[in-house]
Amino acid sequence: MSGAPAIAAAEQEPGSTVVLHPGIDGAGTVRRTVLPGGLRVVTETMPTVRSVAFGIWAGIGSRDEDLADAGATHYLEHLLFKGTPRRSALDISAAMDAVGGDLNAFTAKEYTCYYARVLDADLPLAVDVVSDMVTSSLIEEADVEAERGVILEEISMRDDDPSDLIHDEFAIAMYGDAPLGRPILGTVDTINALRRDGIARYYHAHYRPPNLVVAVAGNVDHHRVVELVGRAFEGHLSGAERPARPRVGGEPTPALGGGARVIADDTEQAHLVLGVPALARHDDRRFALGVFNAAFGGGMSSRLFQEIREKRGLAYSVYSYTSQHCDTGSFGLYAGCQPAKVDEVLEICRQEFAKAAARGLSAEELERGKGQLRGSTVLGLEDTGSRMSRIGKSELVYDSLLSVDEVLARIDAVGLDEVNALARELLEQRPTLTVIGPFEGREFTV
Amino acid sequence: MSGAPAIAAAEQEPGSTVVLHPGIDGAGTVRRTVLPGGLRVVTETMPTVRSVAFGIWAGIGSRDEDLADAGATHYLEHLLFKGTPRRSALDISAAMDAVGGDLNAFTAKEYTCYYARVLDADLPLAVDVVSDMVTSSLIEEADVEAERGVILEEISMRDDDPSDLIHDEFAIAMYGDAPLGRPILGTVDTINALRRDGIARYYHAHYRPPNLVVAVAGNVDHHRVVELVGRAFEGHLSGAERPARPRVGGEPTPALGGGARVIADDTEQAHLVLGVPALARHDDRRFALGVFNAAFGGGMSSRLFQEIREKRGLAYSVYSYTSQHCDTGSFGLYAGCQPAKVDEVLEICRQEFAKAAARGLSAEELERGKGQLRGSTVLGLEDTGSRMSRIGKSELVYDSLLSVDEVLARIDAVGLDEVNALARELLEQRPTLTVIGPFEGREFTV
Repeated sequence: MSGAPAIAAAEQEPGSTVVLHPGIDGAGTVRRTVLPGGLRVVTETMPTVRSVAFGIWAGIGSRDEDLADAGATHYLEHLLFKGTPRRSALDISAAMDAVGGDLNAFTAKEYTCYYARVLDADLPLAVDVVSDMVTSSLIEEADVEAERGVILEEISMRDDDPSDLIHDEFAIAMYGDAPLGRPILGTVDTINALRRDGIARYYHAHYRPPNLVVAVAGNVDHHRVVELVGRAFEGHLSGAERPARPRVGGEPTPALGGGARVIADDTEQAHLVLGVPALARHDDRRFALGVFNAAFGGGMSSRLFQEIREKRGLAYSVYSYTSQHCDTGSFGLYAGCQPAKVDEVLEICRQEFAKAAARGLSAEELERGKGQLRGSTVLGLEDTGSRMSRIGKSELVYDSLLSVDEVLARIDAVGLDEVNALARELLEQRPTLTVIGPFEGREFTV
Repeated sequence: MSGAPAIAAAEQEPGSTVVLHPGIDGAGTVRRTVLPGGLRVVTETMPTVRSVAFGIWAGIGSRDEDLADAGATHYLEHLLFKGTPRRSALDISAAMDAVGGDLNAFTAKEYTCYYARVLDADLPLAVDVVSDMVTSSLIEEADVEAERGVILEEISMRDDDPSDLIHDEFAIAMYGDAPLGRPILGTVDTINALRRDGIARYYHAHYRPPNLVVAVAGNVDHHRVVELVGRAFEGHLSGAERPARPRVGGEPTPALGGGARVIADDTEQAHLVLGVPALARHDDRRFALGVFNAAFGGGMSSRLFQEIREKRGLAYSVYSYTSQHCDTGSFGLYAGCQPAKVDEVLEICRQEFAKAAARGLSAEELERGKGQLRGSTVLGLEDTGSRMSRIGKSELVYDSLLSVDEVLARIDAVGLDEVNALARELLEQRPTLTVIGPFEGREFTV
């Protein structure tokens, strides 16, 4: 286990580089440089791969929007692909297509990420293109109009996939119209109402170096990356600002306290999510929750999978999940089943919640859950994209970055009492239920 | 470029091992051993990773079914997870969950694959569990009944996702009730009609060593893998049989010759696929088709993306694709758009087909398409799972396995005249259209 210096980026001397984790034999070394103006560059070396994942993370997400602007963060993410003074939209995509690179972006509730995965020799191109998009987007009126249609299509596509839609509907059921409850895509009304100037203001206010993290993983040299990024951000890096601190939790977004939300639709399956408020991102019990989640509904040997799919054949897709934000989080389960079986499935889910609250996991389940989380953590970090995401997101949301070995040690340290106390605390809460299906006029109780 | 010996597995001496590709510095070495009874073991070394992907491929797919058995191959795939004399279903899943392994399977029209991805130290476990499932499934009556429900749920889930369903509907439009036209999942009626004995007979007839390929990629030693597989298949490897030859094409499945299939449904978007018959798997022009596909609708700089999404904002998801079988194949495009815009989108698609048929690609598009295909080929082969899939599937369907360098050389060799002659030949055919959307009573012409 490496001893990470507990230095937060905001305290690091501008212009300096620190080794956050030494790695082994040149692999897994994580370094951070803070550039003038407060831009951070974090890299992780993977000397045996031929590719590199280059990402720019912005500490801005849909929960930062006003109600009237709902969807602006994601709309903006689309617009950054539309052109800069140096490149048209076609120039951007053609540059990456010509080298077979994968250029994409995603928007979450607390951050936005733009990334490219390319062969290592094409790193300079990736740095130049993605940095250009992030620093110098034109956000032109005509592009805002054309892209409005694309986003309305994206909303319709989400609406056509109930196993996707259910999660947005659950957030509404859980948090109402608090920022955390709103869909990242916005709504048809807010997207139709957004105007070029508002989006551009939003861009200039939030896409500033202290709020950005450049994260790179693969066959790279840190100092070469810093040099390329410095050049690509030329003219944008000045002043004495320090990197922004991670988002602070404050008062948790209140959960509405249980209840059922039914979306009547003519679907083949009933799609349901049942969940409770859970842990915020910085809660040290998150490793215990990860282990519990694995054992409860994370794998094929989990309780949910065994009870609902394996023994009774009631669902094809059934799983539990956790989500964490700076102030709160949730633990929930999803199942898709025949509408005629929804009461039976729901009853099993309720019983499994109650059983886990009352009696927790067995020692055997705990060990299996830990093994599963350890193995999937290591297996999930073999490609450059997942390594880049881990260090980029962590730099944005945590004051210090755990090494993979430290993460594994935290999982190992989870004890049965801790897990079972947590299960009791979480699952004794009144759950929130969301159901999509042919249930016009039907009521559900939780 | 390595000189691969053009020896097919069926001609290889049982008990012997050949090096199909030497690799470089111990990486990328591909070896094949033919075991007694005709079982093949192919491995590719990736000494710098910590994981291994272990797969068993069976040369049996949904197109091998009789009409009355439609869905039997996929049903069987599910049943192989349900237990053997040595392991219950829970034993199988718990063994893999305990080490965080990823155990899964998929069924295609011409093959079925079972695979596990685990840390390299857990290879013996993966070999034992997956081999046990494939060689010794019990296929018990009670499991057949429970799993029937799961498969009916899987069908309903597919029906709830029109962007998935459209591809099954297109196959029906293209090939009618010929085996290639039928959905891999079967239908509600055929699944309800399938009985334990029929499925078990199907299993014993097709899951025989000459028809199986064991494929492994990662941090492995070939001879150690052969030893483990030999032990796991003990009692199943005897006789003088040789590995089965790749499936032979014969007369192509006739395409129905164009026309429109409309599935009226209350969806938010209109989902459409427009396609034509294209190349069979062994056609040497498949590399030219790959380049054409990249330039036509494969990336963000492609014609389809630019015309439909970038310039006009008419769709979020729009792309072209190719599919290859032993006797025939198809080239098509997908778009999801507002129902009110379906005629406009369809008109653009038709025009792009016509333009590409008449004038082909430009030299610049050709180069970009080649770069895209080269880059995405290399970037897509960095993980153990994709390497395992490449060698396993190739061993099953081709007489010889190209090295990655050979694939890249074939892409490089594609010429403009070849691509444009192919585009003309394919796109001058009358296309087949499939549309899902709120189009009750409406007719479409192609």
